Amino acid sequence: MSGVPFAGGIGPGASFPDEVQELRARTRNFIRSTVIPAEPRPGQALNLAVRRELSEAAKAAGVYAPHVSKDFGGQGLAVEHWSPVFQEAGYSPIGPAVLNCMAPDEGNMHMLHLIGTAEQQRRYLAPLAAGEISSCFAMSEPHPGAGSDPDALLTTAIRDGKGWVINGRKRFTSGATFASFAIVMARTAESGTAPAGATMFLVPMATPGVSLGAPIHTMDKYLPGGHPHVDFDDVKVPAAAVLGEPGMGFKHAQVRLGPARLTHCMRWLGLARRALDIALDRTNSREIFGTHISQLGIAQDMIAQSVIDIETSDAIITQCAALLGVDPRSGSALSSVTKVHCSEAVYRIIDRAVQLCGGDGVSDGLPLAQYLNEVRPFRIYDGSTETHKWAIARRASAARRHAVEAGEPFQGTVNADRWQR
Amino acid sequence: MSGVPFAGGIGPGASFPDEVQELRARTRNFIRSTVIPAEPRPGQALNLAVRRELSEAAKAAGVYAPHVSKDFGGQGLAVEHWSPVFQEAGYSPIGPAVLNCMAPDEGNMHMLHLIGTAEQQRRYLAPLAAGEISSCFAMSEPHPGAGSDPDALLTTAIRDGKGWVINGRKRFTSGATFASFAIVMARTAESGTAPAGATMFLVPMATPGVSLGAPIHTMDKYLPGGHPHVDFDDVKVPAAAVLGEPGMGFKHAQVRLGPARLTHCMRWLGLARRALDIALDRTNSREIFGTHISQLGIAQDMIAQSVIDIETSDAIITQCAALLGVDPRSGSALSSVTKVHCSEAVYRIIDRAVQLCGGDGVSDGLPLAQYLNEVRPFRIYDGSTETHKWAIARRASAARRHAVEAGEPFQGTVNADRWQR
Amino acid sequence: MSGVPFAGGIGPGASFPDEVQELRARTRNFIRSTVIPAEPRPGQALNLAVRRELSEAAKAAGVYAPHVSKDFGGQGLAVEHWSPVFQEAGYSPIGPAVLNCMAPDEGNMHMLHLIGTAEQQRRYLAPLAAGEISSCFAMSEPHPGAGSDPDALLTTAIRDGKGWVINGRKRFTSGATFASFAIVMARTAESGTAPAGATMFLVPMATPGVSLGAPIHTMDKYLPGGHPHVDFDDVKVPAAAVLGEPGMGFKHAQVRLGPARLTHCMRWLGLARRALDIALDRTNSREIFGTHISQLGIAQDMIAQSVIDIETSDAIITQCAALLGVDPRSGSALSSVTKVHCSEAVYRIIDRAVQLCGGDGVSDGLPLAQYLNEVRPFRIYDGSTETHKWAIARRASAARRHAVEAGEPFQGTVNADRWQR
Amino acid sequence: MSGVPFAGGIGPGASFPDEVQELRARTRNFIRSTVIPAEPRPGQALNLAVRRELSEAAKAAGVYAPHVSKDFGGQGLAVEHWSPVFQEAGYSPIGPAVLNCMAPDEGNMHMLHLIGTAEQQRRYLAPLAAGEISSCFAMSEPHPGAGSDPDALLTTAIRDGKGWVINGRKRFTSGATFASFAIVMARTAESGTAPAGATMFLVPMATPGVSLGAPIHTMDKYLPGGHPHVDFDDVKVPAAAVLGEPGMGFKHAQVRLGPARLTHCMRWLGLARRALDIALDRTNSREIFGTHISQLGIAQDMIAQSVIDIETSDAIITQCAALLGVDPRSGSALSSVTKVHCSEAVYRIIDRAVQLCGGDGVSDGLPLAQYLNEVRPFRIYDGSTETHKWAIARRASAARRHAVEAGEPFQGTVNADRWQR
Repeated sequence: MSGVPFAGGIGPGASFPDEVQELRARTRNFIRSTVIPAEPRPGQALNLAVRRELSEAAKAAGVYAPHVSKDFGGQGLAVEHWSPVFQEAGYSPIGPAVLNCMAPDEGNMHMLHLIGTAEQQRRYLAPLAAGEISSCFAMSEPHPGAGSDPDALLTTAIRDGKGWVINGRKRFTSGATFASFAIVMARTAESGTAPAGATMFLVPMATPGVSLGAPIHTMDKYLPGGHPHVDFDDVKVPAAAVLGEPGMGFKHAQVRLGPARLTHCMRWLGLARRALDIALDRTNSREIFGTHISQLGIAQDMIAQSVIDIETSDAIITQCAALLGVDPRSGSALSSVTKVHCSEAVYRIIDRAVQLCGGDGVSDGLPLAQYLNEVRPFRIYDGSTETHKWAIARRASAARRHAVEAGEPFQGTVNADRWQR
Repeated sequence: MSGVPFAGGIGPGASFPDEVQELRARTRNFIRSTVIPAEPRPGQALNLAVRRELSEAAKAAGVYAPHVSKDFGGQGLAVEHWSPVFQEAGYSPIGPAVLNCMAPDEGNMHMLHLIGTAEQQRRYLAPLAAGEISSCFAMSEPHPGAGSDPDALLTTAIRDGKGWVINGRKRFTSGATFASFAIVMARTAESGTAPAGATMFLVPMATPGVSLGAPIHTMDKYLPGGHPHVDFDDVKVPAAAVLGEPGMGFKHAQVRLGPARLTHCMRWLGLARRALDIALDRTNSREIFGTHISQLGIAQDMIAQSVIDIETSDAIITQCAALLGVDPRSGSALSSVTKVHCSEAVYRIIDRAVQLCGGDGVSDGLPLAQYLNEVRPFRIYDGSTETHKWAIARRASAARRHAVEAGEPFQGTVNADRWQR
Repeated sequence: MSGVPFAGGIGPGASFPDEVQELRARTRNFIRSTVIPAEPRPGQALNLAVRRELSEAAKAAGVYAPHVSKDFGGQGLAVEHWSPVFQEAGYSPIGPAVLNCMAPDEGNMHMLHLIGTAEQQRRYLAPLAAGEISSCFAMSEPHPGAGSDPDALLTTAIRDGKGWVINGRKRFTSGATFASFAIVMARTAESGTAPAGATMFLVPMATPGVSLGAPIHTMDKYLPGGHPHVDFDDVKVPAAAVLGEPGMGFKHAQVRLGPARLTHCMRWLGLARRALDIALDRTNSREIFGTHISQLGIAQDMIAQSVIDIETSDAIITQCAALLGVDPRSGSALSSVTKVHCSEAVYRIIDRAVQLCGGDGVSDGLPLAQYLNEVRPFRIYDGSTETHKWAIARRASAARRHAVEAGEPFQGTVNADRWQR
Repeated sequence: MSGVPFAGGIGPGASFPDEVQELRARTRNFIRSTVIPAEPRPGQALNLAVRRELSEAAKAAGVYAPHVSKDFGGQGLAVEHWSPVFQEAGYSPIGPAVLNCMAPDEGNMHMLHLIGTAEQQRRYLAPLAAGEISSCFAMSEPHPGAGSDPDALLTTAIRDGKGWVINGRKRFTSGATFASFAIVMARTAESGTAPAGATMFLVPMATPGVSLGAPIHTMDKYLPGGHPHVDFDDVKVPAAAVLGEPGMGFKHAQVRLGPARLTHCMRWLGLARRALDIALDRTNSREIFGTHISQLGIAQDMIAQSVIDIETSDAIITQCAALLGVDPRSGSALSSVTKVHCSEAVYRIIDRAVQLCGGDGVSDGLPLAQYLNEVRPFRIYDGSTETHKWAIARRASAARRHAVEAGEPFQGTVNADRWQR
């Protein structure tokens, strides 16, 4: 750990190699010295020119795009080492944008890196990694289309000569307003070796037939352009627009989804550490009834609970990131657990920080009320807590049923007389 | 993971080496095939003869004393690899006793291994590791002595020629009834290079002046002999009875305490997995309102919450065990967080399992009610949840204060006008 | 309130008439002066001879059978005034038995009072109210019979001349071991004006064909005789054995169920007040780190939370008891809410008291561990928390749907543009 | 209840007289037919002209100013009957402003009614009750002045001839921007029969020396003018400006505080009922996985929990309002409990409603995200949850200590051998 304490907590685990710890320390210094002083008023999106300027500084400081391969100008960090660095980035609400590791671009870069063709990487990944353009991921649809249940997908892509024609309507398309291209999920028919299913397409936003629909204003404010509707009316794209294999869209999206869920957890956990630090600074400096607030027991209970939430979140993120590498199927299952735990924990931590700061906590004299609004939607997007719980429970029940069918002794029989001695 | 699913959960992390995974699988099979069928009626302690017989079987199966070095007949597992194996042991409430990795012997073995002299190891560790004798740890005292606050220690040891004379009264001395020796913590004066403080002594229970006091009946029942008072009246011990350095008793005890806290978490987490499996078997097989209970949403919420509790507990145990090895000070701080989270999580998991099994859950037709009574005290011993939270909060507040004093920007100032843009 | 503070809380509401407050004060004094000193060791049932002796004292003190009409030797309290008196009775775990207001007799008396014939009241209610005999309520059946879902009722009663023949198996028949008679719920066919449905029968336990089956040992220990199975094999009963109207069994049972749920809440809330008092006595008298525990903030949080749990439980019991009188249908719906809130609150209060007393809390040096075991099943019997929640949610959803159908404006439309100004 | 169901819950208790139920029904109809259609976009304050127009309609409908005496143009409702009517008003976030029963005016009216002189009532209460002017309550001060700890009051009033000179700085002075007068709390010296302490003054905002300071922007948006700082620099007021008795300011403020805490609970509970209705409409009409969301169990758990929160809040408000009338001291203690329970419950209910509506819940297509921001500060103002808990715990500990000193048996002794049989 080399004398560099982790913000608001005990530590990020000791298992990270030296070069990761060094990048973490560098990122930490950059966020504190350069990014935090430039933060806009809570609730305002980052000015684009300022973002570019800060991103140049990040490149100079060797902390830009930690998750992007060095070939494309990043720091080349492996997925299992993202957590400590992304947490440092997330310590400022504008940190991930400055370091170009913010959703949805970060997940799109990851997917392009893993399944994009060389030409797709050249055309889309390179400028995205360099921060020259931004992107969006067009998956969610208005009810009754694809929401929590991807099978309800209504957008279609039909073969048209060598290319495709896309029709449909998307919503909650975060970042679409300023995006140069979208990755679009559409239903496709069986064809040749491609199974019926969903296919992903790389679609420049300037393509005829693509249009921004009604904006959706949500509680969070830091992402420029919000989460608008996007309409696709007879949008023609060439064969080369297919990202990955036709019909394999959902499977490919898993590639994006597991890590994307985790990186949200990492970034927001960084912001939760910030919130706890703000609360600690205040409770360390304010007195009430002649005592520092930090020494009042009810405050101590809240502080301790937040530390516990931070450390358990940190631990399960680390464990999940490691598992994703060696056992993607189990890793994906664990990412569901991780997402629920972290999104709820992060919200609780910031909520407690608000409470610890009293009247100032709900005013704009401190940024905490806005942080609360930033993280509230995370309990819903990327699969709501309830949807994930439903999936977690079904998976646990089925796994146990299969274990019993495979010979594990059944333990549900009620029998007070079975005990041996 | 090699096709061996972990009980009631996704997995124990992928980072364990093959030989650890193999020992885990072997332990798992032994517990299921040999130990579970021999379990006594819930609430009854294991018959000593049966325990010995089962322990011999464990030796034959190559699963005995996983934490003990091979020199002393164990499996030689490193601390950071104990978790998956101890969880498998704890899947049966008698598993840890059978495998000789139960408190308090397990912690005493660990300490003797690390700071005992060769002679002490020969005399005490060898027969303890072999399961020929058992031991106790005499630390807690009746109020107002050493309880949550070790500084209140009242038992004293005074130099007497080359030896010592011990006087005092201990309580909650788990296992003392059948123990061959005790490790006794006593207050000692400054002397030579030894500072004033506490010193640990190895004291055979048969030493004149040692006597069992009133028993304390607690909710948990599996540990034979309970948690009695032990009186020390002018107990004379030789110089060689000192364990570790004079005056360093509390420091040495940390050696025991950190891992001992964790091993409790590991074993009880195993039992929590068992409780969830019992509940899953029942909800998978019972119908209500024409539906399997496991598919009713309110049950699903409880199942999912238990999986989340299991996985976060597993993750933070793994992270803490790794940290203890490379940074004992941070590791000890994290063990406090781990202990609170796991003890509360384990209780919740078993409590939910009881609830999921309805009337049978509170009857002795299933062992769950007894499991609940077994784990309830763990929220209190080894430092209660509240004592640990108090310590966690103080540590977090102090760490942040020091960070600010060392130059970290103070963030508690209320100022709505500071934002840059 | 006249200078008589309520145990462990602010007060039972000010709306009770003077004579109720006087009976409460009398009951309070009797419990403290006479009942508490006679309490058996935690976990042991009350000796029958002692109970009789104490009951005689209760009669002499004018506090016996508060809910029974004066005609039958009770205090003639109206249902909406039971709460403060039953809470005082429940302050001792044996108080309700001594005052003859314990389940299941108390609910049976209430039902006999409301729907029994004069002859049934003479034969069954009179000796029951006098404490000369005891009774049981035979409703629950082994899976897949009537459990949470009464419609699954398997026990049948078939007309046989002027009488009936009952066949079936019951379980969790609390108090059956020492009961003189049972009220048995059985499925009956349509006949004359009687609809198909369920019918209740008064059946002496000595009737040929009635036999006690296997006992069920549950965590709670104060009720003598536990909760055994009872078998009914060709049990012949006369026409006069029918309690209420044939085919109306479930409807009549509601008469019993609503108040019976509430009286459980009242009695256990009394015990929860006792637990808080024990914890307060201890935290007021013990010091740790040089401070009284009651002044440590983490303890304060727990104490405050318990007061909140007590007062909200008290308030909703009062509100529900008043509603049951004027609007039984709404009252029954509210009793579901009340039961869930109080059973969970009472458990939390005792659990916190255990925690506040540290090691002693889980030992038999204090009665708290046993209290925890006494109240744990209440989260399951009389409808588990989960079953009630399911019913509460369905009722709320349906009520809202009907309100919308009846003209209430529908508010679920998503439309950011509807706002007027 | 006469066929008028209460919004989102079972009922407001059956104990209210017919005329109260009628006013409730009238208010309910007015809110639904007239107020809800005029609601501004979430997060925008109500336009003053619209408010006046709606208030005139309320007067015409006989629902205006329910808490104001008929002499001053209100409905003359007694405090113990406010709850059902205020809940109906709060069902719309602008309802209380339209009905002129919103904080801080409502509390100021109540205090003027109880302790104002005839002249003060004529000058201030009459136009306030008529909605011609508005007011504020200047109590809180910037740190280290009066916040949670009123004794820290720094604003002073010094006698100056027959009048007074006030100096000090206030903050969180809700409504000050548009107020015609303020009620100002200031420290005053002993003088004649008046003790040293605090005194309240009626101060027109146009008085020389009164100036609005920096605004404080908080999360809530419906109150026009926010919660600014107000400075008092050598503000001269006449003797007749004293409200109540000199030196009795804190005691008088209790008159305001107890009911004011309760009316916040009532209004916000109304909004919580609205939030649940929105969520129920949505879960009743949306399908997912082929099932209505309202029938998915995880949703059912949340709905049931919200009903429980609503009913327990309703019950404790009713009980507290009744107690305040007959035993103000106990009523004030219970109002602390009520405030904590209701503020936390209301927040949870709206938070669950957001979650049940998924992505729409956090967007401005539904008003729920804004409701969440409206009620979040209520967990802090009027005494934060933590401050109240601290007071509740101290009161409970002291009450028990006094009871024991007065002869109640001490129950904290640990003794396994005391049991009689």
